[in-house]
Amino acid sequence: MPRVAVDVLLKREILDPQGRAVEEALPGLGYEGVREVRVGKHLELVVDAADEELAARVDAMCQGFLTNPVIESYRWRVIEESERADV
Amino acid sequence: MPRVAVDVLLKREILDPQGRAVEEALPGLGYEGVREVRVGKHLELVVDAADEELAARVDAMCQGFLTNPVIESYRWRVIEESERADV
Repeated sequence: MPRVAVDVLLKREILDPQGRAVEEALPGLGYEGVREVRVGKHLELVVDAADEELAARVDAMCQGFLTNPVIESYRWRVIEESERADV
Repeated sequence: MPRVAVDVLLKREILDPQGRAVEEALPGLGYEGVREVRVGKHLELVVDAADEELAARVDAMCQGFLTNPVIESYRWRVIEESERADV
């Protein structure tokens, strides 16, 4: 069954205070030269769906529940077991 | 300059209450057949680094500031402008 990774960020025109805070903290911690920091949500989930219905199922879930489409945008992709972020 | 996407999740053996809450809410909202939901952080940032030093810079930042390596694991990848999640 496909394992899906969803990335959610505030839309580009929306101020991201968490991203701004990270960006401003980095130089003081010795990490120079980092900019355009945006912080959002990452989800991984397994969807019991055939390939041909997967996109519709994931998009419905993202738009209807996992994100706020007014202020957030998202991308999703199918990942392999070996690509899981939770090692 | 490389644009980097970082995905952070709680390690697999750590309980993820937010993922559990999402997983349990989905059927009631009409989204059936979803399991193993994990919820974490997604960051995108631009790093002013040459290719050969990028990995060391990103890993240092992830391990030293962006994640808690005791309970979280992460993956990162270079993304194109067109792959940004903040459309």
